[in-house]
Amino acid sequence: MMPPHEKAKSALKAGQIAGRRRSEFAIIEDYFAPLTQGDPLAYALKDDAAIIHPMPGMDLVVTVDGMVAGVHFLPDDPPEEIAQKLLRVNLSDLAAKGAEPLSYVLTCAWPRDLSLEWIERFAQGLSADQKRFGIHLIGGDTVATDGPLTLSLTAFGQTPEGSMIRRGGARPGDVVCVSGAIGDGAAGLRIARGEACEIDAAGRDYLLQRYRRPEPHLGLGQALRGIAHACADVSDGLLADAAHIGQASGVRLVLQAAKVPLSASAQSTGLDRVALITGGDDYELLFTLDVKAAGALSALSIETGVALNVIGRVDPRQGTKSGACLLNEQGREIEVAEMGYQHF
Amino acid sequence: MMPPHEKAKSALKAGQIAGRRRSEFAIIEDYFAPLTQGDPLAYALKDDAAIIHPMPGMDLVVTVDGMVAGVHFLPDDPPEEIAQKLLRVNLSDLAAKGAEPLSYVLTCAWPRDLSLEWIERFAQGLSADQKRFGIHLIGGDTVATDGPLTLSLTAFGQTPEGSMIRRGGARPGDVVCVSGAIGDGAAGLRIARGEACEIDAAGRDYLLQRYRRPEPHLGLGQALRGIAHACADVSDGLLADAAHIGQASGVRLVLQAAKVPLSASAQSTGLDRVALITGGDDYELLFTLDVKAAGALSALSIETGVALNVIGRVDPRQGTKSGACLLNEQGREIEVAEMGYQHF
Repeated sequence: MMPPHEKAKSALKAGQIAGRRRSEFAIIEDYFAPLTQGDPLAYALKDDAAIIHPMPGMDLVVTVDGMVAGVHFLPDDPPEEIAQKLLRVNLSDLAAKGAEPLSYVLTCAWPRDLSLEWIERFAQGLSADQKRFGIHLIGGDTVATDGPLTLSLTAFGQTPEGSMIRRGGARPGDVVCVSGAIGDGAAGLRIARGEACEIDAAGRDYLLQRYRRPEPHLGLGQALRGIAHACADVSDGLLADAAHIGQASGVRLVLQAAKVPLSASAQSTGLDRVALITGGDDYELLFTLDVKAAGALSALSIETGVALNVIGRVDPRQGTKSGACLLNEQGREIEVAEMGYQHF
Repeated sequence: MMPPHEKAKSALKAGQIAGRRRSEFAIIEDYFAPLTQGDPLAYALKDDAAIIHPMPGMDLVVTVDGMVAGVHFLPDDPPEEIAQKLLRVNLSDLAAKGAEPLSYVLTCAWPRDLSLEWIERFAQGLSADQKRFGIHLIGGDTVATDGPLTLSLTAFGQTPEGSMIRRGGARPGDVVCVSGAIGDGAAGLRIARGEACEIDAAGRDYLLQRYRRPEPHLGLGQALRGIAHACADVSDGLLADAAHIGQASGVRLVLQAAKVPLSASAQSTGLDRVALITGGDDYELLFTLDVKAAGALSALSIETGVALNVIGRVDPRQGTKSGACLLNEQGREIEVAEMGYQHF
């Protein structure tokens, strides 16, 4: 974490000494306006709107994700990490599209008893990740709520015209690949909830970090432009997101359970393979590419520093079947109760 | 309200007959995908992202506003009107910038017990306003919450390059104008809450509609490009929003309380003039312009069909005083407890 900038520090102090709430505008000026990093078209968050200028020859890509305390993160998670998860799940969507990040707008519905210290730490979390991922704040809205902390972030990125990687581009005959390891998010959530499992301290820390601060694969996503036929990030669950690609593409992704890469830490939590595969919150990239291009995967993995594994193939659509299925080692379809996280 | 499209109808029926929840994806496909109006760059809401193409020579303007049940609307307000208020408060921001609407993305945090009928009516409200104001959905996220219904909408618009009307452009010597009538939002909220006041049925209906379905002044905003030096819409309260213009411009807006236009209905609720002036939720346009241009106001009012009134002047900034003040008929500053709605 960065040290708080001096202005935020003194504002916090004033708030504490006075023992009273600070106005929405003071909070925006002290904690959020610095996150615009001087972008003149963000007008220091003092206007009703901002202007976005994608570079000439680039498409402007927009994505939005919301998070609710108790659903997407735990209310007592560190505020820096809540901020970073919010930013990163959106960056992960940009990564899946092959986009480079530009800027974002933010809506925060804050419980009335949230402390200034909490808000300051939340802004510090954003600030650290902004520098790391090359994105900055250009607008937002802060409102009060009597319910749980609720956040929404709309992120903007750019791709060379016409080169955004779609969900709907998978073709029969493609191979299906996934980055990194699957199941760490689900395993990390189990640990964050304090559910019993036998795992050493290093494994616990690894999984907690994977759950709280997923790593958006921006470099990999950009490298996949022109190579991947379809791509999505794994948020709802590997099988569910594969089905989304299948449905959008009019094909069926056939995944082999045994080939899905799981970390040793995730396996040691006692969750079974199918639970890890369908758990969600992984933020790995799931993509399809021509079988002839599959030879380039090892070079791509070395270039981007991200492990890449072939986990299945793309079949033609079969009637009303779902867009994806999971096979066991005998090649039979595994019956899965829930393909991924269900919001409703 | 429009009749529901057939697909939504049958989906609703299926949901009721099955007596079980529908998946997030089915809800999106049935109720929200039609709101993209076939924009190919919205990918029928089946992708992780959409693409926005402002026209050549236009600046892309972005604004965001959140709303929480119990704070910005009442939980039992009609769902169509909640949807329309959400869209309209954002359209009002675009209006204040002189922008024409393009598209929007939406985040909905829905209580788990929200009915399919509620969601269908919410989508119908959006659909009707989309047609009316020339805007369409391009993306979104739906999540579940254990708290109150929480909504966030990011709206996109466009202005000819460099012509967005700023908050920070007011100059000493300008006159201050406001559209329509002020205080109807505050008076309408009072009625919506069931607080006693002597007013006839027509007055009640008028004020309730003004509170629940504010009218964004898009035509007026576009007509003010090149005329208004500064503009904001009145959401927090006339005096508070005047102060925001004053602060952003480094000037002081001096408003005369007696000149602020109030509707007869609002006055008949028994709320005093200052309470109406500082109540907020008006979504009228507050702007400043050169005193020499003030002669054009009547023509502009006729052209746009919106009443326009001069309510004050712009003075140079005076030390640490706030960016706006309200004078009584003797020219003395009225002491105001709260300049506008305080979120915290």
